[in-house]
Amino acid sequence: MLLYTNALSGNCYKVRLLLTQLGLQAERRELDVYDRSDRPEVLGELNPALRVPTLVLDDGRALPESGAILWYLAEGTEYLPTDSFERAQALQWMFFEQYDLEPNIAVVRFWELGGIHADPELRTAKVQAGHRALDALERHFGAHEFLVGERYSIADIALFGYTHVAPEGGFGLEGYPAVRSWLTRVAAQPGHIAITDC
Amino acid sequence: MLLYTNALSGNCYKVRLLLTQLGLQAERRELDVYDRSDRPEVLGELNPALRVPTLVLDDGRALPESGAILWYLAEGTEYLPTDSFERAQALQWMFFEQYDLEPNIAVVRFWELGGIHADPELRTAKVQAGHRALDALERHFGAHEFLVGERYSIADIALFGYTHVAPEGGFGLEGYPAVRSWLTRVAAQPGHIAITDC
Repeated sequence: MLLYTNALSGNCYKVRLLLTQLGLQAERRELDVYDRSDRPEVLGELNPALRVPTLVLDDGRALPESGAILWYLAEGTEYLPTDSFERAQALQWMFFEQYDLEPNIAVVRFWELGGIHADPELRTAKVQAGHRALDALERHFGAHEFLVGERYSIADIALFGYTHVAPEGGFGLEGYPAVRSWLTRVAAQPGHIAITDC
Repeated sequence: MLLYTNALSGNCYKVRLLLTQLGLQAERRELDVYDRSDRPEVLGELNPALRVPTLVLDDGRALPESGAILWYLAEGTEYLPTDSFERAQALQWMFFEQYDLEPNIAVVRFWELGGIHADPELRTAKVQAGHRALDALERHFGAHEFLVGERYSIADIALFGYTHVAPEGGFGLEGYPAVRSWLTRVAAQPGHIAITDC
Protein backbone atom coordinates (compact mmCIF):
# COMPACT_ATOMS: atom_id res chain seq x y z
CA MET A 1 0.00 0.00 0.00
CA LEU A 2 1.02 3.59 -0.57
CA LEU A 3 0.06 6.36 1.85
CA TYR A 4 0.13 9.99 0.80
CA THR A 5 0.78 11.66 4.11
CA ASN A 6 2.22 14.57 6.05
CA ALA A 7 4.19 14.37 9.27
CA LEU A 8 2.35 17.28 10.97
CA SER A 9 -1.14 16.10 10.05
CA GLY A 10 -3.21 14.54 12.81
CA ASN A 11 -5.46 13.01 10.17
CA CYS A 12 -2.48 11.19 8.65
CA TYR A 13 -1.22 10.21 12.10
CA LYS A 14 -4.51 8.41 12.78
CA VAL A 15 -3.87 6.15 9.78
CA ARG A 16 -0.19 5.62 10.62
CA LEU A 17 -1.15 4.71 14.20
CA LEU A 18 -3.73 2.12 13.15
CA LEU A 19 -1.42 0.67 10.48
CA THR A 20 1.24 0.21 13.17
CA GLN A 21 -1.17 -1.37 15.64
CA LEU A 22 -2.40 -3.74 12.94
CA GLY A 23 1.17 -4.62 11.98
CA LEU A 24 0.63 -3.40 8.41
CA GLN A 25 3.18 -1.68 6.23
CA ALA A 26 2.60 1.15 3.77
CA GLU A 27 5.10 3.05 1.70
CA ARG A 28 4.83 6.74 2.51
CA ARG A 29 4.88 9.71 0.20
CA GLU A 30 5.17 13.00 2.09
CA LEU A 31 3.16 15.97 0.79
CA ASP A 32 3.45 19.57 1.95
CA VAL A 33 0.42 20.90 3.85
CA TYR A 34 1.30 24.58 3.45
CA ASP A 35 2.31 24.65 -0.24
CA ARG A 36 -0.41 22.62 -1.90
CA SER A 37 0.37 23.60 -5.48
CA ASP A 38 1.29 20.04 -6.50
CA ARG A 39 -1.94 18.52 -5.18
CA PRO A 40 -3.95 18.47 -8.44
CA GLU A 41 -1.09 16.75 -10.20
CA VAL A 42 -0.37 14.24 -7.42
CA LEU A 43 -3.84 13.54 -6.00
CA GLY A 44 -6.16 14.70 -8.79
CA GLU A 45 -7.04 11.18 -9.90
CA LEU A 46 -7.10 9.74 -6.39
CA ASN A 47 -8.99 12.08 -4.06
CA PRO A 48 -11.69 14.63 -5.00
CA ALA A 49 -10.73 16.70 -1.95
CA LEU A 50 -7.00 16.66 -2.86
CA ARG A 51 -6.10 16.01 0.78
CA VAL A 52 -3.88 13.76 2.82
CA PRO A 53 -4.20 11.08 3.96
CA THR A 54 -4.98 9.18 0.78
CA LEU A 55 -4.32 5.46 0.81
CA VAL A 56 -3.66 3.56 -2.41
CA LEU A 57 -4.22 -0.19 -2.12
CA ASP A 58 -1.92 -2.71 -3.78
CA ASP A 59 -4.43 -3.16 -6.61
CA GLY A 60 -4.34 0.59 -7.33
CA ARG A 61 -7.68 1.57 -5.83
CA ALA A 62 -7.48 4.82 -3.85
CA LEU A 63 -9.26 5.54 -0.59
CA PRO A 64 -9.32 9.11 0.78
CA GLU A 65 -10.63 10.48 4.11
CA SER A 66 -9.02 9.36 7.35
CA GLY A 67 -12.32 8.11 8.78
CA ALA A 68 -13.03 5.93 5.75
CA ILE A 69 -9.48 4.57 5.78
CA LEU A 70 -9.67 3.74 9.49
CA TRP A 71 -12.98 1.95 8.94
CA TYR A 72 -11.65 -0.04 5.99
CA LEU A 73 -8.49 -1.13 7.74
CA ALA A 74 -10.14 -1.90 11.08
CA GLU A 75 -13.08 -3.96 9.76
CA GLY A 76 -12.85 -7.47 11.17
CA THR A 77 -10.24 -6.53 13.78
CA GLU A 78 -10.45 -5.73 17.48
CA TYR A 79 -10.33 -2.01 16.67
CA LEU A 80 -13.87 -1.89 15.25
CA PRO A 81 -16.82 -3.06 17.38
CA THR A 82 -19.04 -5.83 16.00
CA ASP A 83 -22.27 -4.65 17.61
CA SER A 84 -24.30 -2.60 15.13
CA PHE A 85 -25.18 0.15 17.59
CA GLU A 86 -21.58 0.45 18.79
CA ARG A 87 -20.41 0.64 15.18
CA ALA A 88 -22.82 3.52 14.63
CA GLN A 89 -21.56 5.16 17.82
CA ALA A 90 -18.00 4.92 16.52
CA LEU A 91 -19.11 6.71 13.36
CA GLN A 92 -20.99 9.26 15.46
CA TRP A 93 -17.79 10.25 17.23
CA MET A 94 -15.78 10.19 14.00
CA PHE A 95 -18.28 12.53 12.30
CA PHE A 96 -18.30 14.71 15.43
CA GLU A 97 -14.51 14.91 15.22
CA GLN A 98 -14.47 15.96 11.57
CA TYR A 99 -17.27 18.52 12.04
CA ASP A 100 -16.78 19.97 15.52
CA LEU A 101 -13.20 19.27 16.58
CA GLU A 102 -10.93 19.11 13.54
CA PRO A 103 -12.08 22.28 11.73
CA ASN A 104 -11.42 24.22 14.93
CA ILE A 105 -8.56 22.65 16.87
CA ALA A 106 -6.61 21.34 13.88
CA VAL A 107 -7.03 24.55 11.90
CA VAL A 108 -5.91 26.83 14.76
CA ARG A 109 -2.94 24.50 15.38
CA PHE A 110 -2.13 24.64 11.64
CA TRP A 111 -2.12 28.45 11.82
CA GLU A 112 0.07 28.43 14.95
CA LEU A 113 2.63 25.97 13.56
CA GLY A 114 2.77 27.83 10.24
CA GLY A 115 2.93 31.33 11.71
CA ILE A 116 -0.28 32.20 9.83
CA HIS A 117 -2.17 35.26 11.05
CA ALA A 118 -5.83 34.50 10.46
CA ASP A 119 -8.72 36.93 10.75
CA PRO A 120 -9.03 37.59 14.53
CA GLU A 121 -12.82 37.17 14.55
CA LEU A 122 -12.60 33.84 12.74
CA ARG A 123 -9.80 32.73 15.05
CA THR A 124 -11.85 33.58 18.15
CA ALA A 125 -14.84 31.69 16.77
CA LYS A 126 -12.68 28.62 16.14
CA VAL A 127 -11.06 28.78 19.57
CA GLN A 128 -14.49 28.93 21.21
CA ALA A 129 -15.85 26.10 19.05
CA GLY A 130 -12.76 24.01 19.77
CA HIS A 131 -13.33 24.42 23.48
CA ARG A 132 -16.96 23.38 23.08
CA ALA A 133 -15.73 20.17 21.41
CA LEU A 134 -13.31 19.57 24.29
CA ASP A 135 -16.13 20.27 26.77
CA ALA A 136 -18.22 17.57 25.08
CA LEU A 137 -15.32 15.10 25.37
CA GLU A 138 -14.78 16.02 29.03
CA ARG A 139 -18.43 15.27 29.80
CA HIS A 140 -18.18 11.92 28.03
CA PHE A 141 -14.97 10.86 29.72
CA GLY A 142 -16.36 11.85 33.09
CA ALA A 143 -18.44 8.67 32.81
CA HIS A 144 -16.56 6.48 30.31
CA GLU A 145 -13.06 5.04 29.87
CA PHE A 146 -13.19 5.09 26.05
CA LEU A 147 -15.51 6.53 23.42
CA VAL A 148 -17.45 3.39 22.53
CA GLY A 149 -18.23 0.17 24.36
CA GLU A 150 -15.71 0.86 27.12
CA ARG A 151 -12.84 -0.35 24.98
CA TYR A 152 -10.25 1.15 22.64
CA SER A 153 -11.41 1.47 19.04
CA ILE A 154 -10.87 3.53 15.88
CA ALA A 155 -13.16 6.14 17.44
CA ASP A 156 -10.46 6.74 20.07
CA ILE A 157 -7.78 6.87 17.38
CA ALA A 158 -9.84 9.40 15.39
CA LEU A 159 -10.40 11.69 18.38
CA PHE A 160 -6.89 11.26 19.80
CA GLY A 161 -5.31 12.52 16.56
CA TYR A 162 -5.87 16.21 17.17
CA THR A 163 -6.95 16.24 20.83
CA HIS A 164 -3.52 15.21 22.09
CA VAL A 165 -1.83 18.02 20.13
CA ALA A 166 -4.49 20.62 20.98
CA PRO A 167 -1.98 22.50 23.20
CA GLU A 168 0.09 23.16 20.05
CA GLY A 169 -2.88 25.26 18.92
CA GLY A 170 -3.06 27.03 22.27
CA PHE A 171 -5.86 24.82 23.63
CA GLY A 172 -4.66 24.16 27.16
CA LEU A 173 -5.92 20.89 28.59
CA GLU A 174 -5.55 21.87 32.26
CA GLY A 175 -9.30 22.24 32.63
CA TYR A 176 -9.97 18.84 31.07
CA PRO A 177 -8.79 16.20 33.58
CA ALA A 178 -11.01 13.43 32.21
CA VAL A 179 -9.76 14.08 28.68
CA ARG A 180 -6.16 13.97 29.94
CA SER A 181 -6.79 10.61 31.65
CA TRP A 182 -8.21 9.23 28.39
CA LEU A 183 -5.19 10.52 26.43
CA THR A 184 -2.99 8.57 28.86
CA ARG A 185 -5.07 5.42 28.37
CA VAL A 186 -4.85 5.72 24.58
CA ALA A 187 -1.09 6.30 24.68
CA ALA A 188 -0.73 3.15 26.82
CA GLN A 189 -2.34 0.87 24.20
CA PRO A 190 -0.14 -1.89 22.75
CA GLY A 191 1.68 -0.74 19.62
CA HIS A 192 1.04 2.95 20.23
CA ILE A 193 3.31 5.37 18.38
CA ALA A 194 3.70 9.12 18.84
CA ILE A 195 2.81 11.55 16.06
CA THR A 196 6.53 12.35 15.83
CA ASP A 197 7.50 8.67 15.44
CA CYS A 198 8.46 7.63 11.95
CA MET B 1 -38.38 5.79 17.41
CA LEU B 2 -38.23 9.49 18.11
CA LEU B 3 -36.44 11.90 15.75
CA TYR B 4 -35.40 15.35 16.91
CA THR B 5 -35.50 17.23 13.65
CA ASN B 6 -35.97 20.50 11.79
CA ALA B 7 -37.88 21.01 8.57
CA LEU B 8 -35.23 23.24 6.94
CA SER B 9 -32.27 21.02 7.82
CA GLY B 10 -30.79 18.98 5.01
CA ASN B 11 -29.12 16.75 7.59
CA CYS B 12 -32.52 15.90 9.08
CA TYR B 13 -34.02 15.45 5.61
CA LYS B 14 -31.43 12.75 4.86
CA VAL B 15 -32.74 10.71 7.80
CA ARG B 16 -36.39 11.36 6.95
CA LEU B 17 -35.76 10.30 3.35
CA LEU B 18 -34.10 7.01 4.33
CA LEU B 19 -36.75 6.26 6.96
CA THR B 20 -39.42 6.72 4.28
CA GLN B 21 -37.59 4.56 1.75
CA LEU B 22 -37.16 1.86 4.39
CA GLY B 23 -40.84 2.08 5.34
CA LEU B 24 -39.94 2.97 8.92
CA GLN B 25 -41.87 5.33 11.17
CA ALA B 26 -40.46 7.78 13.70
CA GLU B 27 -42.27 10.29 15.82
CA ARG B 28 -40.88 13.74 15.12
CA ARG B 29 -40.02 16.53 17.51
CA GLU B 30 -39.30 19.79 15.72
CA LEU B 31 -36.47 21.96 17.09
CA ASP B 32 -35.63 25.51 16.03
CA VAL B 33 -32.33 25.91 14.16
CA TYR B 34 -32.02 29.67 14.67
CA ASP B 35 -32.99 29.95 18.36
CA ARG B 36 -31.02 27.11 19.96
CA SER B 37 -31.50 28.21 23.56
CA ASP B 38 -33.48 25.08 24.48
CA ARG B 39 -30.87 22.68 23.11
CA PRO B 40 -28.98 21.92 26.34
CA GLU B 41 -32.25 21.10 28.09
CA VAL B 42 -33.70 19.01 25.25
CA LEU B 43 -30.58 17.31 23.79
CA GLY B 44 -28.04 17.63 26.62
CA GLU B 45 -28.27 13.97 27.61
CA LEU B 46 -28.62 12.68 24.05
CA ASN B 47 -26.09 14.41 21.79
CA PRO B 48 -22.77 15.98 22.77
CA ALA B 49 -23.02 18.34 19.78
CA LEU B 50 -26.60 19.40 20.72
CA ARG B 51 -27.63 19.16 17.08
CA VAL B 52 -30.44 17.76 14.98
CA PRO B 53 -30.94 15.14 13.75
CA THR B 54 -30.79 13.02 16.88
CA LEU B 55 -32.56 9.67 16.75
CA VAL B 56 -33.78 7.98 19.92
CA LEU B 57 -34.41 4.26 19.52
CA ASP B 58 -37.38 2.53 21.13
CA ASP B 59 -35.13 1.25 23.92
CA GLY B 60 -34.08 4.82 24.75
CA ARG B 61 -30.58 4.76 23.25
CA ALA B 62 -29.77 7.97 21.39
CA LEU B 63 -27.84 8.20 18.13
CA PRO B 64 -26.68 11.63 16.86
CA GLU B 65 -25.01 12.62 13.56
CA SER B 66 -26.87 12.13 10.29
CA GLY B 67 -24.10 9.96 8.82
CA ALA B 68 -24.11 7.57 11.79
CA ILE B 69 -27.91 7.38 11.73
CA LEU B 70 -27.96 6.63 7.99
CA TRP B 71 -25.37 3.90 8.48
CA TYR B 72 -27.24 2.32 11.39
CA LEU B 73 -30.60 2.31 9.61
CA ALA B 74 -29.24 1.16 6.25
CA GLU B 75 -27.11 -1.74 7.50
CA GLY B 76 -28.38 -4.97 6.00
CA THR B 77 -30.55 -3.20 3.42
CA GLU B 78 -30.10 -2.39 -0.27
CA TYR B 79 -29.08 1.16 0.66
CA LEU B 80 -25.68 0.13 2.07
CA PRO B 81 -23.21 -1.80 -0.09
CA THR B 82 -21.96 -5.15 1.20
CA ASP B 83 -18.49 -4.99 -0.39
CA SER B 84 -15.95 -3.73 2.13
CA PHE B 85 -14.25 -1.30 -0.24
CA GLU B 86 -17.59 0.11 -1.43
CA ARG B 87 -18.65 0.55 2.19
CA ALA B 88 -15.48 2.54 2.81
CA GLN B 89 -16.16 4.58 -0.34
CA ALA B 90 -19.65 5.39 0.97
CA LEU B 91 -18.04 6.66 4.17
CA GLN B 92 -15.44 8.59 2.13
CA TRP B 93 -18.20 10.57 0.41
CA MET B 94 -20.13 11.03 3.64
CA PHE B 95 -17.05 12.44 5.39
CA PHE B 96 -16.35 14.60 2.32
CA GLU B 97 -19.89 15.95 2.56
CA GLN B 98 -19.62 16.84 6.24
CA TYR B 99 -16.19 18.44 5.84
CA ASP B 100 -16.18 20.06 2.38
CA LEU B 101 -19.79 20.53 1.32
CA GLU B 102 -22.03 20.98 4.36
CA PRO B 103 -19.96 23.60 6.26
CA ASN B 104 -19.97 25.72 3.11
CA ILE B 105 -23.17 25.17 1.13
CA ALA B 106 -25.44 24.44 4.10
CA VAL B 107 -24.08 27.31 6.17
CA VAL B 108 -24.42 29.92 3.38
CA ARG B 109 -27.97 28.62 2.72
CA PHE B 110 -28.71 28.89 6.45
CA TRP B 111 -27.55 32.52 6.40
CA GLU B 112 -29.62 33.26 3.27
CA LEU B 113 -32.81 31.66 4.61
CA GLY B 114 -32.40 33.37 7.98
CA GLY B 115 -31.46 36.80 6.61
CA ILE B 116 -28.15 36.60 8.49
CA HIS B 117 -25.42 38.99 7.35
CA ALA B 118 -22.17 37.11 7.92
CA ASP B 119 -18.67 38.55 7.66
CA PRO B 120 -18.13 39.17 3.90
CA GLU B 121 -14.66 37.61 3.86
CA LEU B 122 -15.92 34.46 5.58
CA ARG B 123 -18.92 34.32 3.25
CA THR B 124 -16.69 34.61 0.18
CA ALA B 125 -14.42 31.83 1.47
CA LYS B 126 -17.43 29.56 2.04
CA VAL B 127 -18.91 30.30 -1.39
CA GLN B 128 -15.60 29.43 -3.04
CA ALA B 129 -15.16 26.27 -0.97
CA GLY B 130 -18.76 25.25 -1.72
CA HIS B 131 -18.07 25.56 -5.44
CA ARG B 132 -14.93 23.46 -5.07
CA ALA B 133 -17.09 20.73 -3.48
CA LEU B 134 -19.57 20.98 -6.38
CA ASP B 135 -16.67 20.85 -8.85
CA ALA B 136 -15.52 17.58 -7.25
CA LEU B 137 -19.02 16.13 -7.59
CA GLU B 138 -19.25 17.29 -11.21
CA ARG B 139 -16.00 15.48 -12.02
CA HIS B 140 -17.27 12.30 -10.35
CA PHE B 141 -20.66 12.32 -12.05
CA GLY B 142 -19.02 12.94 -15.40
CA ALA B 143 -18.01 9.27 -15.20
CA HIS B 144 -20.47 7.70 -12.74
CA GLU B 145 -24.24 7.39 -12.34
CA PHE B 146 -24.12 7.29 -8.54
CA LEU B 147 -21.49 7.88 -5.88
CA VAL B 148 -20.59 4.27 -5.08
CA GLY B 149 -20.83 1.02 -7.01
CA GLU B 150 -23.03 2.53 -9.75
CA ARG B 151 -26.12 2.19 -7.61
CA TYR B 152 -28.14 4.35 -5.23
CA SER B 153 -26.96 4.20 -1.61
CA ILE B 154 -26.85 6.25 1.59
CA ALA B 155 -23.87 8.08 0.10
CA ASP B 156 -26.24 9.55 -2.50
CA ILE B 157 -28.76 10.42 0.20
CA ALA B 158 -26.03 12.12 2.27
CA LEU B 159 -24.78 14.21 -0.66
CA PHE B 160 -28.25 14.93 -2.09
CA GLY B 161 -29.39 16.51 1.19
CA TYR B 162 -27.71 19.88 0.67
CA THR B 163 -26.66 19.67 -2.99
CA HIS B 164 -30.24 19.79 -4.26
CA VAL B 165 -30.99 22.92 -2.20
CA ALA B 166 -27.66 24.60 -2.99
CA PRO B 167 -29.47 27.22 -5.15
CA GLU B 168 -31.25 28.39 -1.97
CA GLY B 169 -27.78 29.44 -0.80
CA GLY B 170 -27.04 31.17 -4.09
CA PHE B 171 -25.05 28.26 -5.54
CA GLY B 172 -26.41 28.09 -9.08
CA LEU B 173 -26.18 24.62 -10.60
CA GLU B 174 -26.23 25.78 -14.25
CA GLY B 175 -22.52 24.98 -14.61
CA TYR B 176 -22.95 21.50 -13.16
CA PRO B 177 -24.87 19.42 -15.73
CA ALA B 178 -23.63 16.06 -14.46
CA VAL B 179 -24.62 16.98 -10.90
CA ARG B 180 -28.08 18.00 -12.14
CA SER B 181 -28.51 14.65 -13.94
CA TRP B 182 -27.57 12.84 -10.75
CA LEU B 183 -30.06 14.92 -8.73
CA THR B 184 -32.76 13.81 -11.19
CA ARG B 185 -31.74 10.16 -10.81
CA VAL B 186 -31.88 10.40 -7.01
CA ALA B 187 -35.28 12.11 -7.08
CA ALA B 188 -36.59 9.28 -9.30
CA GLN B 189 -35.75 6.56 -6.76
CA PRO B 190 -38.70 4.58 -5.37
CA GLY B 191 -40.07 6.13 -2.19
CA HIS B 192 -38.35 9.47 -2.72
CA ILE B 193 -39.77 12.40 -0.78
CA ALA B 194 -38.99 16.10 -1.13
CA ILE B 195 -37.41 18.08 1.70
CA THR B 196 -40.71 19.96 1.99
CA ASP B 197 -42.77 16.75 2.27
CA CYS B 198 -44.01 15.95 5.75
